[in-house]
Amino acid sequence: MTSKSKLSLEPYKGTRDFYPRDQFIQNYIFSVWKKVVEKYGYLEYGASILEESELYRAKSGDEIVKEQTYTFTDRGGREVTIRPEMTPTVARMVAQKRRHLNFPLRWYSIPNLFRYERPQRGRLREHWQLNVDMFGVEGVEADAEVISTAYDIMKAFGAKDEHFEIRVNNRRLMNYILAEHLSLTEEQSHKASKLVDKMHKMEAVPFSKAMQEILAEKSEMFLKVLRVKDVGSLDPSILNSAGGQELKLIMEKLKAMGIKNALYDPAVVRGFDYYTGMVFEVYDLNPKNNRSLFGGGRYDDLVGIFGVEKITGTGWAMGDVTIRDFLETYNLLPEYYPPVGLYICHLNNHLEDANQLASDLRSQGLNVAVDLTDRKVSAQVKTADKENIPYVLVVGEEEVKTGKYKVKSLKNSTEHTLDKNEIIAQVK
Amino acid sequence: MTSKSKLSLEPYKGTRDFYPRDQFIQNYIFSVWKKVVEKYGYLEYGASILEESELYRAKSGDEIVKEQTYTFTDRGGREVTIRPEMTPTVARMVAQKRRHLNFPLRWYSIPNLFRYERPQRGRLREHWQLNVDMFGVEGVEADAEVISTAYDIMKAFGAKDEHFEIRVNNRRLMNYILAEHLSLTEEQSHKASKLVDKMHKMEAVPFSKAMQEILAEKSEMFLKVLRVKDVGSLDPSILNSAGGQELKLIMEKLKAMGIKNALYDPAVVRGFDYYTGMVFEVYDLNPKNNRSLFGGGRYDDLVGIFGVEKITGTGWAMGDVTIRDFLETYNLLPEYYPPVGLYICHLNNHLEDANQLASDLRSQGLNVAVDLTDRKVSAQVKTADKENIPYVLVVGEEEVKTGKYKVKSLKNSTEHTLDKNEIIAQVK
Repeated sequence: MTSKSKLSLEPYKGTRDFYPRDQFIQNYIFSVWKKVVEKYGYLEYGASILEESELYRAKSGDEIVKEQTYTFTDRGGREVTIRPEMTPTVARMVAQKRRHLNFPLRWYSIPNLFRYERPQRGRLREHWQLNVDMFGVEGVEADAEVISTAYDIMKAFGAKDEHFEIRVNNRRLMNYILAEHLSLTEEQSHKASKLVDKMHKMEAVPFSKAMQEILAEKSEMFLKVLRVKDVGSLDPSILNSAGGQELKLIMEKLKAMGIKNALYDPAVVRGFDYYTGMVFEVYDLNPKNNRSLFGGGRYDDLVGIFGVEKITGTGWAMGDVTIRDFLETYNLLPEYYPPVGLYICHLNNHLEDANQLASDLRSQGLNVAVDLTDRKVSAQVKTADKENIPYVLVVGEEEVKTGKYKVKSLKNSTEHTLDKNEIIAQVK
Repeated sequence: MTSKSKLSLEPYKGTRDFYPRDQFIQNYIFSVWKKVVEKYGYLEYGASILEESELYRAKSGDEIVKEQTYTFTDRGGREVTIRPEMTPTVARMVAQKRRHLNFPLRWYSIPNLFRYERPQRGRLREHWQLNVDMFGVEGVEADAEVISTAYDIMKAFGAKDEHFEIRVNNRRLMNYILAEHLSLTEEQSHKASKLVDKMHKMEAVPFSKAMQEILAEKSEMFLKVLRVKDVGSLDPSILNSAGGQELKLIMEKLKAMGIKNALYDPAVVRGFDYYTGMVFEVYDLNPKNNRSLFGGGRYDDLVGIFGVEKITGTGWAMGDVTIRDFLETYNLLPEYYPPVGLYICHLNNHLEDANQLASDLRSQGLNVAVDLTDRKVSAQVKTADKENIPYVLVVGEEEVKTGKYKVKSLKNSTEHTLDKNEIIAQVK
């Protein structure tokens, strides 16, 4: 230990320190997440932040693991990755205990995740993410429910319908359009999908031009499909395909659930190739920051990568960085308050009395902090004020003798002389 | 994605999967931790699990970082470590914002930590740990308070005074004994301390012998000190040293606080060399598993390693693996219950009615899950039963018509016919 060292005071690049006021916001976000999904009966699970790299290679390929994750070799020669997402882990866990679990499962988790990328607004190297998944229900009712949990969370945060929009599509439908309706080759389908993924970020003319380069004479037919905004207006052959019917049914269910800001968007494809049915994305409608906040979809074949029987799944995930940005933009973050309701200060030689009073009040359910310093009373009170603690009192000779304390509200500067029981009633 | 792959279903070596029933226990432990420390006004903070390796090297040396932690080089050439403990991080955070923080600070965190070691009972590679710290109070009142939070947590878990013991010592006192009372060289002091650390794990005779090898003619004098069990019986010169007086005062304060199972133990030294005053360890008194559960102490010079002015600190930490073992041994873990109070099953074609009812009940504050499968009602009810959900009801034609539902308690098999409002009252 040397005081000469120039140790960095900063957190590691792309990560955050959570001082109590930041942790308060974080806890608020987590508590809203938990409250809403538990309303639907989702159960929390968890797992280690370290997984063997093989798990991600199987899903995403070697290149992505090497370039976009924190991957290293442990001293036992195992390749290990700090998880970049939770889905492979939950699929592994479901596969492992599939014989002992009671399907259908409603599961959620709030994992800490790392990606190796250049830090930028809304995309740090580290974040936390709510993951909501249902396993073992094939019907679109499950898809509608998971979308509904996402909607309810946005509402629980105080977002209004006009702040965001739920854009829904279906991968089965998309596959039908590409392979059957347009009879594209696999290569064309792949390139066209990638382009569609960028549709909302491009101007109409360059988009059409790029599409024509991929699809030539078929591009106009595809662009026509992509212009459809209402499921009912889809070409009957498309609408009657299995994917078309699924999409129609989900849109009806969402409407019946009272979700008014859900709409069909043929441009929602989502990058991951494991989606097999419904896909959705929630968009921020702020014109200055119109972007996808989060999303999810159905992935019926994912658990199968472990070589076990098929277990269907559908779900979504929402990151803390993105949602915090959103809540800040719309001024929806709660005001800070500490967990403690009363700060007890003391005159000389009355610290023990202060501690005794605090102990009594705590045993009655109050959260109470005692100033343990020998500073002047005014400095002690100032600490309480700066820390947003709502009430303060000072213990001195008079108070010990009478058992009555002047309890001051630091918010409105009122003062009441109260005994122990009255303090409990007041501060609670 | 190939179903032929033989992906492992196991978590990474030395880590745990938390299926919902394990996560329930984990959440229970965390909630007790939070509840008690917040009673004393401690504020939660957090930080990233990754830190630059330099942070640990400064405190523990290169060898320990290389051999006992997960350390690797990122693509930017930075050496990064998955944190093995939280203290260096909190010291860094306090040093960083020292000009803006309102001292004294009461802070806590529940970080996820990794050590690179052979997994064994009570010592996995990964664990979670409650960290409780106070910064900026030099007096022993702060030491007494942090010990008191540890005691209260044990009691909140349901532990009795006879299950555990708080063993207290003081590093300043120990230094006085070694350097002044015995006038040892630094090398002798170091060796003797290391041996004392093992005292409770050794038989008396080999311990005395080993001590004699280190201290020769001075060993008897030291062994005499180590046999003292009561602070008052210490040699007056030792008792009157600064460390002796601190120890005496803390023992008195703990007694005044009603903590009966705290005692002086000269063998408590704790490995970390950053402790400067009070040190303590909580021992499991189970004769079959007598061992240190957790501990802490005062570290007044730690924040100084960042080259800033002195900021005193005192605190302790408790791991989830150890405390879970302890609670299991004494049968103190709570019985599992899910967050959901009611499971709604449905007859053919009444899924939408079931969803509507669930939505109504949720809006009234109930946590309700709906079975979305098309299985027979008996299979639906069985799922609720296996998942320990307390109440179940079935929606069919009759129920939709009358608005009355047969609500069955799965615990005692009683059944009541209730309308919506009565359901809310019953299930809440």
